[in-house]
Amino acid sequence: MAGGEITVSNFKPELVTLDLKTYVMQPFRRGKQIKLSDLKEYFSDPEAADQILSEGKNPIIYEYYEYATPEAEGHLTFGVTTIYLGKVGKEYYMTRGHYHDKDAAEIYIGLSGRGLLLMQTKEGEAVYLDLKPGGIGYVPPGWGHRTINTSGEKLVFFFIYPSDAGHDYELVKERGFAKIVIEENGVPKVVDNPRF
Amino acid sequence: MAGGEITVSNFKPELVTLDLKTYVMQPFRRGKQIKLSDLKEYFSDPEAADQILSEGKNPIIYEYYEYATPEAEGHLTFGVTTIYLGKVGKEYYMTRGHYHDKDAAEIYIGLSGRGLLLMQTKEGEAVYLDLKPGGIGYVPPGWGHRTINTSGEKLVFFFIYPSDAGHDYELVKERGFAKIVIEENGVPKVVDNPRF
Repeated sequence: MAGGEITVSNFKPELVTLDLKTYVMQPFRRGKQIKLSDLKEYFSDPEAADQILSEGKNPIIYEYYEYATPEAEGHLTFGVTTIYLGKVGKEYYMTRGHYHDKDAAEIYIGLSGRGLLLMQTKEGEAVYLDLKPGGIGYVPPGWGHRTINTSGEKLVFFFIYPSDAGHDYELVKERGFAKIVIEENGVPKVVDNPRF
Repeated sequence: MAGGEITVSNFKPELVTLDLKTYVMQPFRRGKQIKLSDLKEYFSDPEAADQILSEGKNPIIYEYYEYATPEAEGHLTFGVTTIYLGKVGKEYYMTRGHYHDKDAAEIYIGLSGRGLLLMQTKEGEAVYLDLKPGGIGYVPPGWGHRTINTSGEKLVFFFIYPSDAGHDYELVKERGFAKIVIEENGVPKVVDNPRF
């Protein structure tokens, strides 16, 4: 991790480099790997998750590295997320998904691989968009969002959000998303979430 | 231009596509071409600009196309800027440059060509960063910023800023930037602006 404590007053311009072949971003200030054990209750088939874990495996589902800036109004945070290739039961690997605490947008830019950007309002309106290299998904303020890797390779995308957005994971944990993305007859299919 | 009047309440997720070969972004909601006649007083050698204009030429210096969203807190606007290849006197083609009305950051991501991202505070502290494919410049809130094409080809970059940032061009018009970027002995050089 680069940098020490960052504050509004000492924040200076700095060049960040995104390697366009490996998608490694340097420097970053915050990074995390999310494994199956962290995420198993978010999948629609937790028994399939338990089965994988009981075999002694705990694969990385996704990871992100971000250039975090002060959590103050006007600042932006950006970074790169990689969702690995795989399924839990029929359901493709995906991010946990979140709402923002504040009414704040987020932008996703596809870099490599293909997937879906699933969005929904708290009132239950659901929309999904294709995420592919050069595809840009705009998540308007108020929309919960999750990304899903439906491709036969890693899905890599760039993200940007207001640094003071805040992340609400609880609502997703309680209610899930209205739609889930599963493989059926070898192709991705968006279906209603039976547990929603 | 896509879309009609956009408001906070009717804003829905929509896929935007950035062609990674041509850097054309579709749909966009706002676009502008800035020609030499619009920008001549911003160059350090207005007589050189007048000379070009007097020959009946009025080249496009740069253009941008952006996916504008409601100018409300939490929204983000993004787009693509292309700075054409050329000089006015010794000074490379560049954007007008601006401060934001609010304390709001901006992110620049280099897509094609090479240039410089020049930044300065209102107190006069100046910094510049290389802009090249995969290079990401973070402009912290409060820093004025301008981009300059120092390469032998078009400079293309992606930008993101909070939609309610506001643009202050007056301060740049009055005082300019502390540094200018000129060609000297065939290479780019950042020097003090004699008019600052």
